[in-house]
Amino acid sequence: MFPEYDVIVVGAGHAGCEAAAAAANMGSHVLLITMNMHTIAQMSCNPAMGGVAKGQIVREIDALGGQSGIISDKTMIQFRMLNRSKGPAMWSPRCQSDRMRFAEEWRMTLEQTPNVDIWQDTAKEIIVKDNRAVGVKTSLGVEITAKAVVLTNGTFLNGLIHIGEKQFGGGRVGEKAATGITEQLIQLGFESGRMKTGTPPRIDGRSLDYTKMEEQPGDEIPSKFSYTDTPPLTHQRSCWITYTNEKVHGVLRTGFDKSPMFTGRIKGLGPRYCPSVEDKINRFADKDSHQIFVEPEGWSTVEMYINGFSTSLPEDIQYKAIRLIPGFENAKMFRPGYAIEYDYFPPTQLKLTLETHLIGNLFFAGQINGTTGYEEAACQGLIAGINAHQNAHELDAFILKRSEAYIGVLIDDLVNKGTEEPYRMFTSRAEYRTLLRQDNADIRLTALGHKIGLASEARLVRVQEKIANTEVILEELQKVKVTPNEVNPILAEIGTSPIREKQPLYQLLKRPDVEIEDIKKLSESFATFLNGFNEESAEQAMIKVKYESYIEKERLMVEKMNKLEDLEIIPNFDYDKVPALSFEGRQKLKTIRPHTLGQASRISGVSPSDVSVLLIHIGR
Amino acid sequence: MFPEYDVIVVGAGHAGCEAAAAAANMGSHVLLITMNMHTIAQMSCNPAMGGVAKGQIVREIDALGGQSGIISDKTMIQFRMLNRSKGPAMWSPRCQSDRMRFAEEWRMTLEQTPNVDIWQDTAKEIIVKDNRAVGVKTSLGVEITAKAVVLTNGTFLNGLIHIGEKQFGGGRVGEKAATGITEQLIQLGFESGRMKTGTPPRIDGRSLDYTKMEEQPGDEIPSKFSYTDTPPLTHQRSCWITYTNEKVHGVLRTGFDKSPMFTGRIKGLGPRYCPSVEDKINRFADKDSHQIFVEPEGWSTVEMYINGFSTSLPEDIQYKAIRLIPGFENAKMFRPGYAIEYDYFPPTQLKLTLETHLIGNLFFAGQINGTTGYEEAACQGLIAGINAHQNAHELDAFILKRSEAYIGVLIDDLVNKGTEEPYRMFTSRAEYRTLLRQDNADIRLTALGHKIGLASEARLVRVQEKIANTEVILEELQKVKVTPNEVNPILAEIGTSPIREKQPLYQLLKRPDVEIEDIKKLSESFATFLNGFNEESAEQAMIKVKYESYIEKERLMVEKMNKLEDLEIIPNFDYDKVPALSFEGRQKLKTIRPHTLGQASRISGVSPSDVSVLLIHIGR
Repeated sequence: MFPEYDVIVVGAGHAGCEAAAAAANMGSHVLLITMNMHTIAQMSCNPAMGGVAKGQIVREIDALGGQSGIISDKTMIQFRMLNRSKGPAMWSPRCQSDRMRFAEEWRMTLEQTPNVDIWQDTAKEIIVKDNRAVGVKTSLGVEITAKAVVLTNGTFLNGLIHIGEKQFGGGRVGEKAATGITEQLIQLGFESGRMKTGTPPRIDGRSLDYTKMEEQPGDEIPSKFSYTDTPPLTHQRSCWITYTNEKVHGVLRTGFDKSPMFTGRIKGLGPRYCPSVEDKINRFADKDSHQIFVEPEGWSTVEMYINGFSTSLPEDIQYKAIRLIPGFENAKMFRPGYAIEYDYFPPTQLKLTLETHLIGNLFFAGQINGTTGYEEAACQGLIAGINAHQNAHELDAFILKRSEAYIGVLIDDLVNKGTEEPYRMFTSRAEYRTLLRQDNADIRLTALGHKIGLASEARLVRVQEKIANTEVILEELQKVKVTPNEVNPILAEIGTSPIREKQPLYQLLKRPDVEIEDIKKLSESFATFLNGFNEESAEQAMIKVKYESYIEKERLMVEKMNKLEDLEIIPNFDYDKVPALSFEGRQKLKTIRPHTLGQASRISGVSPSDVSVLLIHIGR
Repeated sequence: MFPEYDVIVVGAGHAGCEAAAAAANMGSHVLLITMNMHTIAQMSCNPAMGGVAKGQIVREIDALGGQSGIISDKTMIQFRMLNRSKGPAMWSPRCQSDRMRFAEEWRMTLEQTPNVDIWQDTAKEIIVKDNRAVGVKTSLGVEITAKAVVLTNGTFLNGLIHIGEKQFGGGRVGEKAATGITEQLIQLGFESGRMKTGTPPRIDGRSLDYTKMEEQPGDEIPSKFSYTDTPPLTHQRSCWITYTNEKVHGVLRTGFDKSPMFTGRIKGLGPRYCPSVEDKINRFADKDSHQIFVEPEGWSTVEMYINGFSTSLPEDIQYKAIRLIPGFENAKMFRPGYAIEYDYFPPTQLKLTLETHLIGNLFFAGQINGTTGYEEAACQGLIAGINAHQNAHELDAFILKRSEAYIGVLIDDLVNKGTEEPYRMFTSRAEYRTLLRQDNADIRLTALGHKIGLASEARLVRVQEKIANTEVILEELQKVKVTPNEVNPILAEIGTSPIREKQPLYQLLKRPDVEIEDIKKLSESFATFLNGFNEESAEQAMIKVKYESYIEKERLMVEKMNKLEDLEIIPNFDYDKVPALSFEGRQKLKTIRPHTLGQASRISGVSPSDVSVLLIHIGR
């Protein structure tokens, strides 16, 4: 009934969709198995993509030839570049999405991808032969074979929903949980754990009083995620900001004795940096107010997402508390918030390709690996999809370094450090965050994506043009010299010290108190020259000049680290034959089996002296 | 946490959505409870509205002020007026719908209806006090009170899905079933039964070869459902027709020993006039081919609905068989067809308002009453919603007569005759089908809808204009007289006999071989005159002339029947005090408690002599 597929992807959330699209676009024949074709690419939590560090990931996915950026651009209702006031390393694109449009756009994208077949069913078991995944069995009882299998089960594996003292099985509220896979994986020798996440109540926007909230409009000149030709927004919807207060907290506290989190019914750890409102009140008892973002769920729906008010307290407590928030006096709920516990598999059981150590050609991506966030899921899906394709065609593994991408940081962290609580990306997790900017993800990654057959030729050409243009602009910045007479009045206006002799623009741009936008004011000829280039190239050149020293510093660090980083450790290296290793270090090294010395160095428990010892044994 | 509502509607399918919208638009404060806000108004089966007799129902819903017509118009991808070659009594509007757009449009409509609140949850129990419904309890454990409750549970009550020998609980494939309500209703004294329905496999349209099928395009000049200003389609998508053959049947037969229908695993009866393909092969063993309609599911999706191939045979048999249909040689399935069994409540337990006899203020609408079809469900929802509002505000019951609407026929049939198998509307079920046309639903019903506060003033004005215009055109048809010289050459062209003396157009239009379109050719002045009127009024006038004698005949029949029909029987009439009644007649009358003699006369088991006996006892 089914052909032999190259790749089967189980689950059609952010991870599964990217995995299926990537493998198919690289030439694999892919089967995407979803429990319900109507819920492909559902945004289970907030209707938004990007944000600090996450926005960088979306741009990286796009640069490699993934779909999340394009789909976000097509379906967004608001765009903001966060942290624009800080250095460009911190600039982070973020959008509000139309929840329905986002899901529909993903489905249409997959439907139009020639090599993707879709099958509505539930995977019950992985077919394993000689310790290799060769297909799946489904709840309809069909067996489908493939050269590789990617699991992206999200919160569905033995999903258990909590609201106050009530609990019931479900993968999302209103949807069935999935059983069978966890049990089989444990039998195969995998270690599993439980994690928890949560979501706030959804509110009828017609019942809110926005005059009591602060408006948060989108950027005046909205940017976008994709490096391709997706058009930016021409109009936008605003979000709204309001705050909890002591009264709200007081009411919430009356439900603590029924909280599944505080009474111990929930065993799994939740995301530390996206805590429930009861958690915030509990942990930060001295704070008498927390920020609440009121986010529209689409262009025309009245449904509102209450960001910052995730909760699993009893629904009547949720209701009473929320009505004490300014603007929410008459709030009507569409549904209460809830917490969900689900199975994950500690990601130290994975290779950097996201293939499992135990079972060949079996890949994990997304929440099954203990992460949280759409962007974190999507980029894992992309990497798992790419490597499933590579495996199916006996091609080289595709691994991004920590110095190349946030995606590299994320996977390296997961595989080497593991995670006890839902892992979320932050800029602070990256050692080289001045290099890993949102503006240069294409320069960093598109050639790599093109080399493996994922990023299109058109994308590559575009990046090459951007690089070439950037160079030309950089030269011009050196060439154009301005005189004190010309620019000193303008420099005074800008509020920076005058120059004494002729200087290249390049020199002036380096001044901390001269902004990128100021340069055009300093030289009419340069401003005219810039008109011949697109915004991206101009911005790129300016950033390169302005942050040259930081960038250079990090580049040197990378080089230094790369010397160690790239020192390979043979797969079967016998750590027991190195007596000088610490006990804990040896244990961790034997479990995780790092590919390189760099990877070994970042394993928690592997000390710097262990690294030195190893260096002697594996190096020259 | 919740206010006291006027009306709670359980379920947000076609019935629930119409019920909620109607009650709210009449002024009731309504709570709509749905298991999943993302699946409001899902078309569980084919993506289409209308059809023979069903299209008339949609127009009736629209005329009364319901939403199905408007939403169908906004979301259709193809429109056809079926039976245009037959008399106007048979003209039946039908559209293909965009499945996703249809659901979204309904949700947006409900969101924009000021008096509708939405709550995502599952109703578990009806709160009953003194034999009256006063609210519901949900699976989240909340209790919500209301003056009336409308149940529209579709196929979800103890839903059980069958595919070959496999069976599993579910309200639709991929969705949970609902439990609790049936069990409670039985305890309250309700009789319940099981019914069955089914759906065909969904196919990837990219895998089909349309050159081997017949194209079925939409009408060249597409019409629409609503009497309001919804614009007709400017472009359309085609459907395709192909056929099964002996080979297909042969393969299907190999699965009969695993068929849940033939092996007795399915207890409920299925819809006789919408049988599964295995049923067709079995019942019509001499037919070596059945028609298959290949219907697109939307503007841009590749998903195709395989109308005529509903089946619950094992999925591998479905797959093998479908690939033998011309054009399906390489067909890929998205999901197999399946059958579903669910609880229904024999509708003889209802009043003509759709309120139950046993529990006051409790209404049933849709598949829970043993019907099949979106249109049948929607119109019941509308009537239940209207009467729930009327009850909640102590206003008069709203009942449509058999001579007024197909909706009247449907409900009268259900309540008086009951149904053992899923009830579907046909034109043959109506005694007065020349009166109950799709072109005059507004004339028949809009004033009634306006009187109860549902149809808007604008709708009423529009109908009044149409009626007035029709009269003016009718007069003109009498006034304009044509001479033999003028028209005989044209009459010859048309193929009808010449006239000998001056005649009014009216007279010529009555000729069977003169079509409505021909009239304009016969008189330039009349053609010019007609330009001053809209299409609808012109058509209405023409139909009135052309079918005058049929219409008149039915009108007389209605009058005659109305004399009996309207004779009321007091609610507590003691049938035991009428010894001349037949045993069966008395039993049925005591159970069903008809309102009028007309209703009594249509109860199966009540003989004409019973009616005569009753007439004596209740009449003057």
